[in-house]
Order: sequence, then C-alpha cells, then structure tokens
Amino acid sequence: MTEDFVKTPQVQTLLNQASGLLSEGGDKRLKDITRDLVEAIMTTIVKHDVTQDEFWSAIKFFQEAGPEFGLIVPGVGLEHFLDLVLDARDAEAGQTGGTPRTIEGPLYVAGAPLVEGDVNLTDDPDDTDTLYMTGQITGPDQEPVKDAILHVWHANSKGFYSYFDPTGEQTPFNNRRRIKIGSDGRYAFHSRMPNGYSVPPEGPTDRLMKALGRHGNRPAHVHFFVEAPGYRQLTTQINFGDDPFAGDDFAFATREGLLPVPNRQGESAYIAFDFELQRAKAAGDEGFSARARAEA
Amino acid sequence: MTEDFVKTPQVQTLLNQASGLLSEGGDKRLKDITRDLVEAIMTTIVKHDVTQDEFWSAIKFFQEAGPEFGLIVPGVGLEHFLDLVLDARDAEAGQTGGTPRTIEGPLYVAGAPLVEGDVNLTDDPDDTDTLYMTGQITGPDQEPVKDAILHVWHANSKGFYSYFDPTGEQTPFNNRRRIKIGSDGRYAFHSRMPNGYSVPPEGPTDRLMKALGRHGNRPAHVHFFVEAPGYRQLTTQINFGDDPFAGDDFAFATREGLLPVPNRQGESAYIAFDFELQRAKAAGDEGFSARARAEA
Repeated sequence: MTEDFVKTPQVQTLLNQASGLLSEGGDKRLKDITRDLVEAIMTTIVKHDVTQDEFWSAIKFFQEAGPEFGLIVPGVGLEHFLDLVLDARDAEAGQTGGTPRTIEGPLYVAGAPLVEGDVNLTDDPDDTDTLYMTGQITGPDQEPVKDAILHVWHANSKGFYSYFDPTGEQTPFNNRRRIKIGSDGRYAFHSRMPNGYSVPPEGPTDRLMKALGRHGNRPAHVHFFVEAPGYRQLTTQINFGDDPFAGDDFAFATREGLLPVPNRQGESAYIAFDFELQRAKAAGDEGFSARARAEA
Repeated sequence: MTEDFVKTPQVQTLLNQASGLLSEGGDKRLKDITRDLVEAIMTTIVKHDVTQDEFWSAIKFFQEAGPEFGLIVPGVGLEHFLDLVLDARDAEAGQTGGTPRTIEGPLYVAGAPLVEGDVNLTDDPDDTDTLYMTGQITGPDQEPVKDAILHVWHANSKGFYSYFDPTGEQTPFNNRRRIKIGSDGRYAFHSRMPNGYSVPPEGPTDRLMKALGRHGNRPAHVHFFVEAPGYRQLTTQINFGDDPFAGDDFAFATREGLLPVPNRQGESAYIAFDFELQRAKAAGDEGFSARARAEA
C-alpha cells in the first residue's frame, strides 16, 4: 500500500464530500483548506502505516489537550513558523528592518493597568533580584515614537504568570502593565526578575515533548506588545542571554537581537533595550491579530 | 511566496528540532510522524496564505473541541478513511469477504449486561415502534459461529444514547447489551426503534459542518461489535435503508450491504440480518482496537 491510495477516486470523492466541496453554501476557502489538511493527514497515515491504535491514541491526546494547544503550537514549532512566514512576506513586500518579531505565547491578559513614568510591575512579594529595564522606542529613521503603549508581561521567580499560576498566589495583573510612553519614546520599568518556566508537568505538552525526546523549558523572558499611531504593531519578547535555556528554548522564541544579557550587580540586574518600529503602511498594520486572548 | 518556503534550510531545521529528530531519546516513529504532520500543516499554511487570524481561530476551535473530536473525526471522513485503509490492507493480504466493517463512532460504553436468548434491549419507556432483529452469525463457509458475543448499542427515539443523553433521562445501559450467542450462531433481540441523530447544536462539530455547507445528521442505525473465538473481531453497524439520511450520512458510515430496509408492519419493524465473520489469522485478530472507550 502506497501513498497513491489517497489519490484513488474513492478517497478523493470522500475528501470532496467531507470538506463540503460537493455541497452548496458554506465557506469556499475553509472547504479548500480543510480538504488539504485532511488529505495531508490521510497521506501521513498511509505513508507511516499508522495503526488504528496509534490513530485513536493521537485523537485522545488532542481531546485532552484543551488549553494546552496554546503550548503545543509553539512546542512543535508552528508559532515560530508563523513568524518566519510573516518575515518572508515582509521581505517580499520590502517591509524590513526594526526589532524582530517573535511569538506571543498563550499567556497575555488584556486589560492590564495603563500607567506612566518609571513603572513598577510587581505587586506581590517575590524574594529575588530586581530587574531594571530602560530604552527608547524609535521609528526607522531613529525618530522617537510618540504616544506609544508598551504592553509588558512576564512570569514571577517561580516561572508562573498571574492568572495562570497553579498555586493561585498572585494578585491580578502582577507583572503585567501597559505603559503609556511620552513624546521622547523613552520607557523605564522595574520588576522582580522572572524565571524561565517549564510546561505543566505530566500535561499533554510535557508528555509530547518527552515522547519526542525533548524538554518543555523556556529561558527567562519578558513579553512585549508595542503599539503607536502611525507605526506597525510589534509582538516580541526578550530572552535573557545568560539563561541556561537561551540557546534551547522549547518554544523557539529566542531570536538574534532579542537575547540581551542582563548586567547583574548584587541584587539588581539591568537591561537596556531599544525598540525600533516599522511605519504602518497597510490597513490593519497598527492593530493586533485577532487571536483570542484572556481578558480580566 | 510558494510552498518551497517550507523546504528552505531554516524551516527544515526547525522541523527537525521541533519533532525531536535532533534530540536523543524519545520515540523515533512518533518523531517521524510528527515531522510529516507539522510539515503538512506548514505547507497548507503557505499554499493558502493562511493569515494569523485564521490560524488562531483554527487553534481556538481545536482547544474547544474536547470530546467532540470523536464527532469531528468521522465528520471530516477520517474514521471512514481508516476503514478504507483496513479494507485495502486486507485486500493486499488476501483477507477478504464477510460482513463489511464500518466505523465504531464515539458512543460505545463497555460493561453492558451480558445476556442470553431473545433479548430486550430497552429498559426505559419510549413511545415509538418496536424493532425486531434476528439473524445468524456464520464463518466464511457458512458454518455457524459458536460462543460469539454480539455487542449491540443504539440511540432512543430522540436520537440520544444512554450515558450521552443531554436530557439525563436514560437509565444505565438502556439500549445497550452484550448478547451471548449459542452454538447455532443465531441471535434475536427487540428494542424501541432508534432515530437518527444530529451532532450537538451549536457545538464545534455543528459549527464546522455549517461552515463547510454541510449538515451533522446520521440516519437511524444500530451498532455492533461481534467477537468469537477463532474469528476476527468485527466492528460494524446497520443503517436503516428507508431513512431520509441513508444516502447522506455526515459520518460516512453507511456502506453497501449495511443498509437493510426495515419491514414495517403497524407498530413493529423487522430486520433480518446475518453476520459473516472472517477467520482469525494474525495475532490480535480476535481482539478490539485499543481505542479509548467509555466504561460504566
């Protein structure tokens, strides 16, 4: 039995029926994409001679995955791949330069306090060093970006995010702020140093990573959205260049230009990091993707 | 941007890393299959120029699907495809003949009462006609199969299965039995006529089917497992040949040879249906697939 089996009229008709291509109504684009995806799954089944037992064990895995799809997607490289696709489309459109984008991850929460000035992000006690981050948001000609909003979110020293903390110990919006930036584009904040995290032990992602001979660890990092009128929205993060997982991030989010090494002095660590935005050109450039996000 | 983008060294390296092919340990077969599946998803993304918004909307769909994966899999034709693959493998192995297999579906519950004789399946009141089914279980030479167990399960007249009834009205194992067959291979049972069902309204499967311009209806049907020492386990079902959806089953379970038309007389309906089993040849032929099943 070879992969040609999927190309037999019987299977092709099944594919056309199942994806709705023989039905009126519905979304033609969804039909085309569904058809290709289901055909690709069928081809993989035949190519690898996947057994019934293996197939149903995979389905059970997806049934149980639930919210962890948000970790599985980066874990299998698909979220980073989306960034590579956007980069390639940008290159084709001549829209290059600026701070690299990298993955958003599943842990943003909308509605964080909008604050100004030299901001403290950490509300809860956390017995660890203090991170001081400063820098400037500029445009492609190094002009300061006016009226930007810098969204920042990161884990605590245990690697847990507020709203997603299994210990339930964090108060709302701990280590989460939206910082309103003035006309000079300069920002400054401090917070308790985050640590890297691993995916929830024994959860679907952890089990998948182990079965693949991999781990589910990320280096310590800080997430950012940058938005400003006239500029293209940026989704990025810095990962600490001196973290043991800096070169081995399970989520493939670490990128050249996004790996500053903190300047550690006693109980303080300093990172200077500038953001360079692209100018908005197309409709929608200023806005966020329509990805579903938690809201508080 | 073309599908060749997926073949660039950058993306190929990402695929090899993400699927664990560059890591020691883990399951080599799972790595190979994961790599091909993720690559196929990537190729589909590039081919259709899938946007961020579309991608995350698909992930949200899968996050919310949970138990409905058991309906989505037949709905997109994959469960029927598995039967076609088994048929083709059997044909290659010269292992043909007998009653056709068809999909199990997600609603079997293990542990139904083991009963003998002319069996009643329906414990709960149900104001509808009575179905009388009779027949014989034979082997390839028409020899009666001894000591078979016939597992039967079907919906009530509202199209709901016990254990999966949203009204919560059915008692345990209503319309579910395991029938112990004697040395003549003959079986007989009666029960309240099942009706076809539609997938849960507004659930993930229903929304997918509508978006594909399809419906989520099945014709009325009765599920069977047949097991007997020395014979190959059979998973099949009969669908009523006079049901409006007999030729348009959303789950693609209706097959030639499995569409008897009930002989309806007043408040009774009669179906005569014989099962022909293949002889067990390979280890494991007598047993069930390791698919996860509900247990009561």
